[in-house]
Amino acid sequence: MAAARRSLIVVSNRGPVGYARDEDGSRVARRGGGGLVTALRSLVAHHDVTWIASAITDEDRVVAAEAGGAVEETVRGGSPCRLRLVPHDPAAYDRFYNVIANPTIWFLQHYLWDLVRNPNVDAALLHAWDDGYVPVNRAFAGAVLEELAARPDATVFFHDYHLYLAPRLVRDARPDAVLAHFVHIPWPDAELWHVLPEGMRRGVHEGLLANDVVGFHTERWARNFRRSAEDLLGEGALERTHVTAHPISVDAAEFAHLAETEAVLQRERELVARRPERIVLRVDRTDPSKNVVRGFLAFELYLEAHPEAHGRVVMLALLDPSRQDIPEYAEYLAAIEREVRRVNARFETDGWTPIDLRVEDDFAASLAAYKQFDVLLVNALFDGLNLVAKEAPLVNERGGVLVLSENAGAHEELAEWVVSINPFDLGGQAEAIHRALAMEEGERERRLQAIRDRVRSHDLEWWIGAQLSDFDAAAARRRAAATAG
Amino acid sequence: MAAARRSLIVVSNRGPVGYARDEDGSRVARRGGGGLVTALRSLVAHHDVTWIASAITDEDRVVAAEAGGAVEETVRGGSPCRLRLVPHDPAAYDRFYNVIANPTIWFLQHYLWDLVRNPNVDAALLHAWDDGYVPVNRAFAGAVLEELAARPDATVFFHDYHLYLAPRLVRDARPDAVLAHFVHIPWPDAELWHVLPEGMRRGVHEGLLANDVVGFHTERWARNFRRSAEDLLGEGALERTHVTAHPISVDAAEFAHLAETEAVLQRERELVARRPERIVLRVDRTDPSKNVVRGFLAFELYLEAHPEAHGRVVMLALLDPSRQDIPEYAEYLAAIEREVRRVNARFETDGWTPIDLRVEDDFAASLAAYKQFDVLLVNALFDGLNLVAKEAPLVNERGGVLVLSENAGAHEELAEWVVSINPFDLGGQAEAIHRALAMEEGERERRLQAIRDRVRSHDLEWWIGAQLSDFDAAAARRRAAATAG
Repeated sequence: MAAARRSLIVVSNRGPVGYARDEDGSRVARRGGGGLVTALRSLVAHHDVTWIASAITDEDRVVAAEAGGAVEETVRGGSPCRLRLVPHDPAAYDRFYNVIANPTIWFLQHYLWDLVRNPNVDAALLHAWDDGYVPVNRAFAGAVLEELAARPDATVFFHDYHLYLAPRLVRDARPDAVLAHFVHIPWPDAELWHVLPEGMRRGVHEGLLANDVVGFHTERWARNFRRSAEDLLGEGALERTHVTAHPISVDAAEFAHLAETEAVLQRERELVARRPERIVLRVDRTDPSKNVVRGFLAFELYLEAHPEAHGRVVMLALLDPSRQDIPEYAEYLAAIEREVRRVNARFETDGWTPIDLRVEDDFAASLAAYKQFDVLLVNALFDGLNLVAKEAPLVNERGGVLVLSENAGAHEELAEWVVSINPFDLGGQAEAIHRALAMEEGERERRLQAIRDRVRSHDLEWWIGAQLSDFDAAAARRRAAATAG
Repeated sequence: MAAARRSLIVVSNRGPVGYARDEDGSRVARRGGGGLVTALRSLVAHHDVTWIASAITDEDRVVAAEAGGAVEETVRGGSPCRLRLVPHDPAAYDRFYNVIANPTIWFLQHYLWDLVRNPNVDAALLHAWDDGYVPVNRAFAGAVLEELAARPDATVFFHDYHLYLAPRLVRDARPDAVLAHFVHIPWPDAELWHVLPEGMRRGVHEGLLANDVVGFHTERWARNFRRSAEDLLGEGALERTHVTAHPISVDAAEFAHLAETEAVLQRERELVARRPERIVLRVDRTDPSKNVVRGFLAFELYLEAHPEAHGRVVMLALLDPSRQDIPEYAEYLAAIEREVRRVNARFETDGWTPIDLRVEDDFAASLAAYKQFDVLLVNALFDGLNLVAKEAPLVNERGGVLVLSENAGAHEELAEWVVSINPFDLGGQAEAIHRALAMEEGERERRLQAIRDRVRSHDLEWWIGAQLSDFDAAAARRRAAATAG
């Protein structure tokens, strides 16, 4: 891998640092620790990175206005980084984020629409596109172009479904730049894009294909993208774009460290004090794509078939309430709570409640549960990768078995060592829970170790290395084409 | 086209003749006039056809038991045909028909599932597969094998989504037979098949790929099938199967004749007596795939934007109530009625009701409306072909304009002469209705004539000819392979 220091422009909707005012009116920087920030930490540490992100808070906008461009910042972990916050009209940003990106595009890419009834492509949706998604992407492209003017050799690295249009706008002004885009969510089949009007679906594909590299977590999503690109834009659509698949990963050392922090140990003591004999764990956002309700229905079938588990096995559901301002999410959380009440009312006995539901955002509690589970259920309908499937086995201390949806991106890597499930198949999931709980210890340990080995050998450094190789190959293709021309 | 008399075994769930007892207890034969019977009429007229179909009524089962095999019959139109009715256990047939074929497979292939909530692959579904779809297909395969034993050179021509497993069972016993299958509904993207458990989705694909020829109405559905076959079964999956696309059609002469029958003329007089200045027509079953509710929402938007249409334009919706014993269909009909009441309550004036809804099966009324429409709205979510889009223009007398969903199979043929719509786009449909109504007469007539020319030059004879050519090519490949071997 090239060790040279590179110039990179990272572009994502949410940045590594945001600003607020504290009670006495002074500015506070908040350093996020989300998946992308963690994933790119070594990139920031070893290279010259300018990170472009939306100015989201009022104080973000003040910072952006004061700077007129980028500010020098440090990301979580301490590495320096130039940060450029892009201000948007708040109403446009709301349309961009709360109408188009989530839920329209997210729903589409996760197969969440009930197409008989939704979506209705109506004036509100078109307005949100034209006066939300388009201008936000245009503002991002403008910021990228200004940064590129100062760093003409920088590689631009776009992220995710918020920014499908920006690459085309950058490409039109800078035909020579190396542009890459990583899509962190599933790419659905070509037909599903037909739900969007032609202008939108073409815009999405033309935007992505303005990149030299488009990356996905799995070969399956990459294949679907190649197909939809050719279906919508014709056979030559992929000529200049390399579509790759490299699954993102986690920082194993960081998880080993976090698992021993006092906050986690405290949570773990609490959990151990009340834990049942066996724990079937799930840790998810309350996103409909996570398929939480079918998980409870499957657990109910398991309890029906296995009276010997009553009083001994508990499903522990740690659910981060997600996007509750979107009605579909509020309804889904209500459905979750309804099912838990119903299943518990059916089976609970004195001293045993079969489903232990915790709706809160408590990372330390999740880590404690990662250590203590016997079975981890990841039954997403569709999921770009699913980091929980990689994180939890790293720190588990009970030979925990991973029951994993065949439609989670991580399944492409981990299939050999998990109990695979079809997320629509209730009986199959009930049977998988039973198989996982009944698996003998040596087998459980062997599988758990194999998952850890895989995650450790294909860690974030490996993922970053794969991205940089793709960038280098793209730059080489550009040089070769320039020489040939 | 080869004029030689061929031996053919046609296999479809519903046959061309069914039986009942009339009031005095004597047997009555009922000759159906459905799409498939009409389509295959000339095949029956010119060739030696054995038609294998389910024994559906009690009297069908009596006939099957008496015959012990095929009976000599005549189909509607008078051509002779050997008819073999296959008796099934009624409970198995109910599971086959009312749990698997409709709704599971039909819903899947038309993108009608709300995947967050349905389907649940549960014990009932697995039971319906194992003890419904499988044995019904096995019974069909057994009947085909018996008929093939008597006519070893016959080509077997399977139809539609009821019979995906039968070809594999026939192939296993008769590796040399020429087998063909026509799928009359859309083929969805590969990913959607992942909703079914692996055994089912593999069974569907392996069954179809046991045929020499698999035909669809459009290149789009054929392409989706090639992809899902390779995704699920591997790269060599298509080696021995030719996947073709030939859109089915209608009998233009028959429609010209029917349009002048007294029953239709009577209905037409009634319609003319009460007709508004302009009619926007839809003629559909109340199937959720037909997208009736969004049609009303679009018409509402049209009325909002065009007050000059009030009192002058009516949407006439002739809806055949379909499969009301399936809850999703009953709910969809309720939603239809709710929307009609709402839109009418909002706009109706003395003497003008904007939506004229007729929920009944009245073919003569449909034909009368075919003659009288100004705009025909076909806005299906997804539709294998949509025969209404071909039938109605043939007999229309008012320069009627076809507004056609880009996801209806007929769109692949007729796009040039229709007003195309995205069925999810309400504003686009409202605008299309306006464009169609506002189109000047010469343009309307030119388009209507072009559609008629296309339908007449690519009629049922053309479609049958294309099938026979595919059969001949398959037989030639088999002979070449046998010689080479």
